[in-house]
Amino acid sequence: MSCSPTTQATPREGVIDLALGHPSPALLPLELLNRAVRHRLSEGDPSILQYGFEQGEGRFRQALASFLSEQYAAPVSAEELFVSNGVSQALDLICTLYTRPGDCVFVEEPTYFLALRILADHGLRVVGLATDEHGLVIEALHEALAVERPAFVYTIPSYQNPAGITLSDERRKTLVELSLEHGFLVVADEVYHLLSYRSTPPRPLGCRALGGSVLSLGSFSKILAPGLRLGWVQADPRLLARLSQCGLLDSGGGLNPFTSAIVGSALERGLVGQHLEALRREYSARARALSAALRARLPHGSTFAEPAGGFFVWLTLPPGGDSRKLLSRGIAKGVSFVPGTRFSSREGLGDSLRLSFSYYDAELLIEGVRRLAPLV
Amino acid sequence: MSCSPTTQATPREGVIDLALGHPSPALLPLELLNRAVRHRLSEGDPSILQYGFEQGEGRFRQALASFLSEQYAAPVSAEELFVSNGVSQALDLICTLYTRPGDCVFVEEPTYFLALRILADHGLRVVGLATDEHGLVIEALHEALAVERPAFVYTIPSYQNPAGITLSDERRKTLVELSLEHGFLVVADEVYHLLSYRSTPPRPLGCRALGGSVLSLGSFSKILAPGLRLGWVQADPRLLARLSQCGLLDSGGGLNPFTSAIVGSALERGLVGQHLEALRREYSARARALSAALRARLPHGSTFAEPAGGFFVWLTLPPGGDSRKLLSRGIAKGVSFVPGTRFSSREGLGDSLRLSFSYYDAELLIEGVRRLAPLV
Repeated sequence: MSCSPTTQATPREGVIDLALGHPSPALLPLELLNRAVRHRLSEGDPSILQYGFEQGEGRFRQALASFLSEQYAAPVSAEELFVSNGVSQALDLICTLYTRPGDCVFVEEPTYFLALRILADHGLRVVGLATDEHGLVIEALHEALAVERPAFVYTIPSYQNPAGITLSDERRKTLVELSLEHGFLVVADEVYHLLSYRSTPPRPLGCRALGGSVLSLGSFSKILAPGLRLGWVQADPRLLARLSQCGLLDSGGGLNPFTSAIVGSALERGLVGQHLEALRREYSARARALSAALRARLPHGSTFAEPAGGFFVWLTLPPGGDSRKLLSRGIAKGVSFVPGTRFSSREGLGDSLRLSFSYYDAELLIEGVRRLAPLV
Repeated sequence: MSCSPTTQATPREGVIDLALGHPSPALLPLELLNRAVRHRLSEGDPSILQYGFEQGEGRFRQALASFLSEQYAAPVSAEELFVSNGVSQALDLICTLYTRPGDCVFVEEPTYFLALRILADHGLRVVGLATDEHGLVIEALHEALAVERPAFVYTIPSYQNPAGITLSDERRKTLVELSLEHGFLVVADEVYHLLSYRSTPPRPLGCRALGGSVLSLGSFSKILAPGLRLGWVQADPRLLARLSQCGLLDSGGGLNPFTSAIVGSALERGLVGQHLEALRREYSARARALSAALRARLPHGSTFAEPAGGFFVWLTLPPGGDSRKLLSRGIAKGVSFVPGTRFSSREGLGDSLRLSFSYYDAELLIEGVRRLAPLV
């Protein structure tokens, strides 16, 4: 497999793999990138091939700041943006610079399972905090803070992966206040914030960052193309300085100058905003179709909330359900998903599972439910 | 400064900055990349925008393996290649996965000063080992190994940064034998190996990697364009598995799929090989011009070796010379360089300095020497 020219996104033959959090191949904007590349390269500016500024190319950060200001309906300046290779790389860098092995990190229960792997590679201890339909439960945070101070709290505030929940405005405010009071960082993975279908989420944590305790991680992976490996960190410039001045950046320069320049052209020409609108329409339709199929076919006692944004439906099985056993039966019938235990910092959540609607169109999502529902 | 659209490579007005290890803007292959992009995008394959295989795109690794096999005159297979964002990122990842703060790393004295910063960010202790005109002194390694076992030895075997020295074939063999015997890794920064002007260096350490103790770091930064942030690790597949299976890669997928695909087209069409030939001719002419100017103008007692490859001349001042004091006087006269102390793990090497010939053409290099030599 390792030498095949295909990517890792290829599902097993005959299986509708609702585990995949990738965009559909058909939604990858090859022609958009083609236009942006032609535009940027026709300018004849070789500096896009040179070592770049540590914080990221200035013109790209300016274009990104304009784009985010419009999308967030709140002012974002180029000074508070640092160019990353995406959320995973930014989280990895933050772990290197702001933690030491043995340190504690608070996460949501459930949380993004692959973030847990990055934290583990840095030898960090993870404490999972309860969530409800309004996101992280502040009382649980208070209780954990009474025991120890974390290096940071890792949260996915909007359309959470996997649970689809959104942290309320009131709780966002309290979380930032507590971080300043107790002296911990908030690492906010805001990668789904712009993928809103039925609501506008509360103001992103990135726009509350000027107190100096929030690092907001954004990415083009969900709104343009994962293969670009291009994202950003929005934070108080004093916090960003630690990232920009680290050894990795001092040696290699900015993290993605060539790709930044190309995506910068796409931003300047309004192409990313147009593409995002199209994605919202398509994903919104899929979320509705998947939810309708689940409502129609799932047995009594199963629960889920129709997603208002993001990529995922979090499904809880009827009492006594075991998503790992269901997965074995599902694969035999040609449908797959991620069992809830993968999202737990303590082997819990075995009665739940995550279904993604980013990779398949409505017809295949419905077929996936048709295969899955009789097994529940 | 942070929002300027220019890159970090811009030297101060009026100063010939021989500290810069960047390629000249004129040597950045904008038209080559333009051709490669047009070719790759015209194939209409959206998978280049998708999450990529953790080890790196298969077709790109195949093209890179063919290129390296030809350039190294030794077989290199796609299975022993892992795609990185360049040497700095690969070194950072190796530190995360193979070390813990407080561990010891052996480096050469002198060594690449910005690698020291990456090691410091990971809380590593650094022990500098003596070098001579044949590279790392093996006796010094024996003595250090009698005291402790390092997590790894970081070496720049060919046309070393900053000293320009090349590790002899015999010592390469001994280093690998010792790493297997004592159970440490060799992290070989082979980024200058292909930039040979007057000699062919001994077989790269990457091609001795199948014993399982060598990680060889390569990059397109010196042979194509730094702004691509594209490089590779060559190692035994068992060692590469640890990199490919880490949390960062599991979450984000392969490190640079889009840029890999473009550079893959350039490799397949022979464009990188042609460009490398042109670079060798240009840098070779510059190395000769800089060396001739130094020979003609430096006072008696200064020593340096004419570079056989790479980007740098390592100059030792006459007895009593102090390169930091010389730097202050140099900047006042419009010439700059990196003083030797920056390359020392123990504040030594104050009598030496590094001059780079990658950024300026022969005429400006000669002018730089004309400004510097009277101050020595």
